[in-house]
Amino acid sequence: MTETPITPDLLRRKLAAAPGPDAAARSDAEARNGALTKPPGALGRLEELALWYAGWRGDARPRISAPQVVVFAGNHGVTARGISAFPPEVTVQMVANFEAGGAAVNQLARAAGAKMDVVALDLDRPTADFCEAPAMSEDDLAAALTAGWNAVDADADLLVTGEMGIGNTTSAAALALALYGGAATDWAGRGTGLDEAGVTHKAEVISQAVALHVPATGFDALRCLGGRELAAMAGAIARARCESIPVILDGFICCAAAACLAEEVPGALDHAVAGHSSAEQAHKALLARLGKVPLLDLGLRLGEGSGAALAIPVLKAALECHSGMATFAEAGVSGG
Amino acid sequence: MTETPITPDLLRRKLAAAPGPDAAARSDAEARNGALTKPPGALGRLEELALWYAGWRGDARPRISAPQVVVFAGNHGVTARGISAFPPEVTVQMVANFEAGGAAVNQLARAAGAKMDVVALDLDRPTADFCEAPAMSEDDLAAALTAGWNAVDADADLLVTGEMGIGNTTSAAALALALYGGAATDWAGRGTGLDEAGVTHKAEVISQAVALHVPATGFDALRCLGGRELAAMAGAIARARCESIPVILDGFICCAAAACLAEEVPGALDHAVAGHSSAEQAHKALLARLGKVPLLDLGLRLGEGSGAALAIPVLKAALECHSGMATFAEAGVSGG
Repeated sequence: MTETPITPDLLRRKLAAAPGPDAAARSDAEARNGALTKPPGALGRLEELALWYAGWRGDARPRISAPQVVVFAGNHGVTARGISAFPPEVTVQMVANFEAGGAAVNQLARAAGAKMDVVALDLDRPTADFCEAPAMSEDDLAAALTAGWNAVDADADLLVTGEMGIGNTTSAAALALALYGGAATDWAGRGTGLDEAGVTHKAEVISQAVALHVPATGFDALRCLGGRELAAMAGAIARARCESIPVILDGFICCAAAACLAEEVPGALDHAVAGHSSAEQAHKALLARLGKVPLLDLGLRLGEGSGAALAIPVLKAALECHSGMATFAEAGVSGG
Repeated sequence: MTETPITPDLLRRKLAAAPGPDAAARSDAEARNGALTKPPGALGRLEELALWYAGWRGDARPRISAPQVVVFAGNHGVTARGISAFPPEVTVQMVANFEAGGAAVNQLARAAGAKMDVVALDLDRPTADFCEAPAMSEDDLAAALTAGWNAVDADADLLVTGEMGIGNTTSAAALALALYGGAATDWAGRGTGLDEAGVTHKAEVISQAVALHVPATGFDALRCLGGRELAAMAGAIARARCESIPVILDGFICCAAAACLAEEVPGALDHAVAGHSSAEQAHKALLARLGKVPLLDLGLRLGEGSGAALAIPVLKAALECHSGMATFAEAGVSGG
């Protein structure tokens, strides 16, 4: 928890100074992995996950005991342009649903043994329509980054950030277009359920927005084209990086927010794995830009942190194997 | 539990008479799914899994509370031909490791909240070298099928069958070649870690075995080319089909055993989903023959039921969402 506002400048400095993984713990974990009762490499990506997590936690034999899911919610002025299949009042209604425990991510977090928090960000004050003006002021951006920073539990040992915000796949697509270029149609997708004409319109909207702003940095893109919940996700993921808390990234919107960090500071997402590949069409391209291979590919396109929460048990299982299995010597098994 | 030996003939009759899924429960589950607080289809395959499970359990709003993992172990005479990277004594050593809780599948079953049982099948009496004679007699096959049948808990609401048996990817590859044809090299893979020359030799061994036996039915293939643990898996999966207990199939060996059932009785595997795609090279082709799309693809190639056990939390999560989420009406969310 910080009383100092987390401005983009401060966040850049914190990320640049953040420690990397613990090489000794990783090396010890590698030695342990090689001694476990299985053929070398037979647990596939579970082995890689365990080593990655061990390095970040500085513990050669770790387990996950305090995973945290935080869902950030924000409203978007660009919804005035008719870019979503759902009306903007659904954001606040879904926040109530999260708080009552009725949404998909509530079930997934509970099933994964994770704590879940909900942070609603000025829902009665949507961002500006970014086809006309920057989505947020400098102060608004810093407030949202700070809210994200402060939402992370200092004793969490795994973080998932999710989001709710009608209109936010449009914001995410605009961010991806600003950061990576290409055609607007490469990045605009169906969101919660647009038809083909709706997607075409959405592509025109993000094209217009990116032409208006031409942001120079990741944080500038986040301010001009993002939303409060996207900025808060970036703040939370950055906090986790600074405190060596591993992160599972969710879908298209989460990854667009994270991409702003990656553009600012190389290695800003080294503590993060991709939980899943979303059915939102541009997510695979965004993951490729981030250099992340998703753990799951089950056709989810819900946001909320749902795909990342679904991947928590996979990461937990990787660590249960790594930290719980017997070695060849312990078990008296030949051939280790 | 049956005192009557489960012969192939009896098993065929039981499978042919086994009930299908409950259409009314499935229909009610579909109606519920359409009312939940998410855009239509936004939970991707989780929705399909929930509907499939609801149908098989005859319950429109089910949860999984008694998952069972059974690991069967057997020894293989064909190991005399040097087709494995590990010596045959590892089978009994790994059974001790399962019983002591030290293997990967122990950790994965525990992490998934599943009960785990281990059934060792005449380890001191390997099957015959199937390059010279049928692997099992009629009595041996019936005994193994019966052991599998009896290993399933009547009150289990999900079944995973795993296996341990040095040499059993050779047996599985021989089964696949006998059932589906193609080249021996299509089906022979690295197993626990053969080099290229080892794989070539393994392909020659299975080619020779299939030329010797030319089995006419799935169960005949299982008797001539299988092993006790493969036959027991088939018996357990068939029992689950007869009692409407959904199954998550594991990797190459489990699927080869299951394929014998599918060849015998159409629909014998309708109660089963594929837990994962193994790194064992022929597993993808085998899954395609079975018409199953794997839930996970994380490069595992361990057997033991590990990939299927890793998928249990995915199926559980699907049902937590389906049965735990609020409807649009309950949550007061617009647009449902």
